[in-house]
Amino acid sequence: MTPSHGQVAAEITAAAFKDLVGLLGAAAVLSEDESQREYGDPFTFAGWHSRRIAATVLPSTVAEVQEIVRIAGRHGFPLWVISQGRNNAYGGAAPRVPGSVLVSLRRMNRVLDVDEEHAVARVEPGVRFFDLYDHLRTKGHRLWSSAPDLGWGSVIGNALEHGVGYTVHGDHAARLCGLEVVLPDGEVIRTGMGAMEGNRSWNLRPRGFGPTMDGLFGQSNLGIVTKAGVWMMPEPESYLAGSIRVPRRPDLPALIEAIRPLLLEGTMQNPPAIGHPAFIAGLVPGAPSRREVHDGPGPIPEAAAIELARRLDVGRWTMRFALYGTGPVVAARFARVRRAVSHIEGVRVDGETFPGHAVHELARDQNAQVQAGIPSLDLMKALDWYSGPGGGHIDFSVVAPLKGRDIVRLHDLLDGWMSGTGLDFDCALILGQRYAINVMQIYFHPEDEATVARVWELYPQLIRAAAAEGFALYRTHLDFMDIGADQFDAGGHAQLRFNERLKDALDPHGVLAPGKQGVWPKSYRSG
Amino acid sequence: MTPSHGQVAAEITAAAFKDLVGLLGAAAVLSEDESQREYGDPFTFAGWHSRRIAATVLPSTVAEVQEIVRIAGRHGFPLWVISQGRNNAYGGAAPRVPGSVLVSLRRMNRVLDVDEEHAVARVEPGVRFFDLYDHLRTKGHRLWSSAPDLGWGSVIGNALEHGVGYTVHGDHAARLCGLEVVLPDGEVIRTGMGAMEGNRSWNLRPRGFGPTMDGLFGQSNLGIVTKAGVWMMPEPESYLAGSIRVPRRPDLPALIEAIRPLLLEGTMQNPPAIGHPAFIAGLVPGAPSRREVHDGPGPIPEAAAIELARRLDVGRWTMRFALYGTGPVVAARFARVRRAVSHIEGVRVDGETFPGHAVHELARDQNAQVQAGIPSLDLMKALDWYSGPGGGHIDFSVVAPLKGRDIVRLHDLLDGWMSGTGLDFDCALILGQRYAINVMQIYFHPEDEATVARVWELYPQLIRAAAAEGFALYRTHLDFMDIGADQFDAGGHAQLRFNERLKDALDPHGVLAPGKQGVWPKSYRSG
Repeated sequence: MTPSHGQVAAEITAAAFKDLVGLLGAAAVLSEDESQREYGDPFTFAGWHSRRIAATVLPSTVAEVQEIVRIAGRHGFPLWVISQGRNNAYGGAAPRVPGSVLVSLRRMNRVLDVDEEHAVARVEPGVRFFDLYDHLRTKGHRLWSSAPDLGWGSVIGNALEHGVGYTVHGDHAARLCGLEVVLPDGEVIRTGMGAMEGNRSWNLRPRGFGPTMDGLFGQSNLGIVTKAGVWMMPEPESYLAGSIRVPRRPDLPALIEAIRPLLLEGTMQNPPAIGHPAFIAGLVPGAPSRREVHDGPGPIPEAAAIELARRLDVGRWTMRFALYGTGPVVAARFARVRRAVSHIEGVRVDGETFPGHAVHELARDQNAQVQAGIPSLDLMKALDWYSGPGGGHIDFSVVAPLKGRDIVRLHDLLDGWMSGTGLDFDCALILGQRYAINVMQIYFHPEDEATVARVWELYPQLIRAAAAEGFALYRTHLDFMDIGADQFDAGGHAQLRFNERLKDALDPHGVLAPGKQGVWPKSYRSG
Repeated sequence: MTPSHGQVAAEITAAAFKDLVGLLGAAAVLSEDESQREYGDPFTFAGWHSRRIAATVLPSTVAEVQEIVRIAGRHGFPLWVISQGRNNAYGGAAPRVPGSVLVSLRRMNRVLDVDEEHAVARVEPGVRFFDLYDHLRTKGHRLWSSAPDLGWGSVIGNALEHGVGYTVHGDHAARLCGLEVVLPDGEVIRTGMGAMEGNRSWNLRPRGFGPTMDGLFGQSNLGIVTKAGVWMMPEPESYLAGSIRVPRRPDLPALIEAIRPLLLEGTMQNPPAIGHPAFIAGLVPGAPSRREVHDGPGPIPEAAAIELARRLDVGRWTMRFALYGTGPVVAARFARVRRAVSHIEGVRVDGETFPGHAVHELARDQNAQVQAGIPSLDLMKALDWYSGPGGGHIDFSVVAPLKGRDIVRLHDLLDGWMSGTGLDFDCALILGQRYAINVMQIYFHPEDEATVARVWELYPQLIRAAAAEGFALYRTHLDFMDIGADQFDAGGHAQLRFNERLKDALDPHGVLAPGKQGVWPKSYRSG
C-alpha cells in the first residue's frame, strides 16, 4: 500500500529549509502540516501517510523557480511540482516520494497577453480555467477557451497531464503552443519560435527550427513550465449543444461506429462524451437518490440503470456533442448527425442552438456550458450523488481505438474484473477522432480503509490485464505509475530506457519529480 | 562558399567500407561517383564540391539500419540520412559534412497497413506520395492522403522536415502518429502507445504514457525514423476546389485579414496557398513565356505582373483553397467564404465542386488535384517557366504571424534586400491557422557560378535581417543551418545548448547527421 518503488522517502535538512525561506520569505514557504492540509491527496486512505510533504514553496517569478531547483540540486532533496494541484482521482497535489518539497505555482497566476486576432493567450501556470474565462469576459474578448468538466484546475497543468476539454481545442496538450520551461538545473528555454528573442510567432506556430521539444514536458519530470501559449476558438456565430440518446447498453458499439466518421470528417469538431445515466442524475434537480436507485454493494444493476434512464428521460448511454459555425453550417452539420445515427433503433437526437455571443447568459446546463468553454464545478454533484459528502474515487483510464468492437472488448474485460468485488463503478467515454479514453470511475469513501485497500489491490491487476489486451493507461494515480510504465515493454522496455537517458542528461542531481510516470533519476535506480 | 562550420570534412576508411558491404552486399552500397549522380544537390554550383558523398548505403530492414549506425559508431564516420532525398531548394539529398556516408531509405518502401476505418496508414520512409496514393487507389480505399506540390518525395521524410501539403492534414508533421525510430546507438524505440507491445492505438493517439518524444525526430539528427503512422481523411461526399483572386498587390493584407477567421473557425480546413501570377503561367498551356513577360534582370516588374495576371485571367494574388463535407455543408461554407471577402474591391471567388468519389477522374488542374491529395510533378513546369530547363532555385522560407500588417512588413523587408541585386524571385504564402510560411523562391542556373555566389552571399544577410524583425526560418538549405540556428538567441542560445545536451546523450559517437539544423555532436564542437 506504499509507493510501488519500494520505501523511497526523502528528508529536507534545516539548512535547505533555511535557503528556501531566505529566497522566498517565510510567507511563501508552508510547513509540513500546512502543506498536508492544502495539498494532500483527498482520495486515498489518509492513515497510510504515504503522501508526506516536507514543505511547500510558492514562487512568484521565473527567477524564483530557477533558484528553487538550484537549491534542491545543492541540498539534494526532491521537488514535486503542481500548478493548481487539482489532479484528484490521480493523487491530487501530492508527491510520489514522501517528504518531497512541493512547488506550488498558484501564485504565478497572470494572464500575460491575449491576442484576439489569433485567438491565443499567454498565461502562467497558476491561471485556472475560471481565471482565464473571467479575464476573457472582463476584457470583452470574443474567444472561447476550452475547459474540462471541473474548472478549478490550471490551464497549463491540465494540458501537461494530457487533460481533456470540450471545445474544438478539447485535446488540451495539442493547444499549448510555445512554452517557457525551467530545466532541472535552472536553465530556462523557450520552445518553438520563442527560442528566438522577439520572434513574432512564438504562440502561433507549434514548431520552430530543429527538433520540437514541447512534448517532452507533458506527463514529465524534465522541466517546470512557467509560461505557455494557449489556443482558443473565436466565438462562433452559432452554437448547438446536442445530445444523442440510445436506449440499450448494447447500443454502444453502433453509436461509436456511427460517430467516428463524423469526427474524422470534422462534422463534429469537439470531443463528445458518452456517459451513464447515474452520472447525469446528480445534475438533475429532483432526480432519485443513489439509494433509491440501488442500495446494495457493487455497481448499479442494469435494470436499475435502465429504469433511472427512463425516469431522467435520458438514454442508457447519452452522448453530448457540439456544433459550431454559421447558422447554415451548423444546420447542415446537424442534419448530417441525425442521418448518421438514424439506423439505431430508439435513438433520439436533440440540439439546442444558441447565438454564440449570448451563450454566457443563455446556456444553463453543464453540457451546454462546458462545450462553450464555460467552466463550473457542477460535476462535483455527480460525485456527491454517488457517494454522498466526503466521497472519493479513483479513475482507471485507458485508451482504446475508436471502434465499437474494441470498446466492447474493453468493457467486457473490466466487467469481468470488477464483478464480485462489491465495488461501485461506472464507465464514461471521451472521444478523440481515432481513439476513445475510457474512464472507469471507482467510487469509495477515503476513510473506509478496507474498501480503499481492495481498490488499491485491484488497480494494478486491471493495469496488467488491460495491457495484455492492448489497452494502455491514459494517465494514472501516483501509486501506479511504475506498474503503468512497466507495461510499455516494446524492445525490452526501450521507452523507459530512453526516458531515463533524457532524465539523466537534463536532471543530473535527480531533483525534479522523481518517479513521475515511472521515470526515476539515476540515484534512485538500483542496479 | 563552404559549409559555414569551418572546413569540417570526413573520410571513410577501407575497413569501414568493407563492413558496410559485408552487411548489405555490394549492390546496396554505392560508390562516391554513383552517389554523386543520384544524390547530389542539384541546385548549387557543382564546382564547389562541398557536397561530397563517400558512399551510399541502401538498407532494406530495420535491423540493417541498426547495424549501419553501429558500424558508423565503431569506425567513427558520419552518416547523413534521407528518405527519398527530394529536399531540393534546401540541399537535395546531399549531406552537411562532405565525405559523409549517405543512408538512403528508398528501399524501405512498404505500405505496411491501411486502417480504413480510422483513416490511417503505417508506412516505411521510402514510401513516396505517389506510392501511397497508388496503394490506396489499387486497394480501393476511400481515403485521401495529403500531398505536397511535388509528389515524388517521401511521406515520412517530408513530414519530418516539417513539409506542407494541402488537404486537412496539410501540416504533415502533425499527421504523423506513432513512430518507430532507430537511435544513433542502434536502439529502437516506438513512440506513443506503440511503446507497448501489441497496443491497439499506436497510430491512433499521438501521445502515450509519459513524455511525448515524436517532435524530437523532426528537423533532427537524433534518430532514424523507420516506420510511422500517417493520418488521412475519409473521402468526402463533396469537395470544392476554390480560388480567390484579388486584383492589386496591396490587396494582400486585406485578403489575409479576411481569411484568418475562416481558418480559425474551421470553415477552411486545409492550408490555402497564395501565389504570384508567374507561378501559374507555367501550368497554363499557351501562356506567355517568361521572356515575353519580362526579359531583363531581376524580378518581373509590377506592371508586367499585372499584365500577366490579366492575360491569364487570374489575380495579382491568387489564393487556392478547398472545402470538404456533405453537399449542404460545403455550400454553407462557400457562402461564408464569399461573404468574408466581398468587401475587397474587384475580388473574384470561384469554386468547382466534385463528388468526392469522382475526383480522381474529374479533377484536371493541379490545384484541384493536390487539395484532394492527388500527387503530381506538374509544378516542375512552373520552375521551367522561370528558368527554362536546368534551372534551379533556393527558397528563403520564413514564418510570420497570419496578419496582414506582418506580411507587408516582411515583404517590404525582402523587397528592400532583393532590390538592386538583379536576382529573380517571387513570394508565395502557405497559410496555417495562425501563421503563414512565406516562401521566397530565388531563381538561378546552377552552372552560373557568379549568380549562385551572389545568392549564397545574400542569403545569410536575409536570415539575419529577417530575424532582427522577428521572422525566423521555417527550414533552410544545408549551408545556412548554422546561421539559422544562431538566430535562436533567447536565453543566450539556450535552445542550442539544450539540443546539444540531447545530442550528446543520445549520440555519444556523434555519427548521425552532424550539423543538421545547426546541431553538432560534441566531437565537432570546438571549445
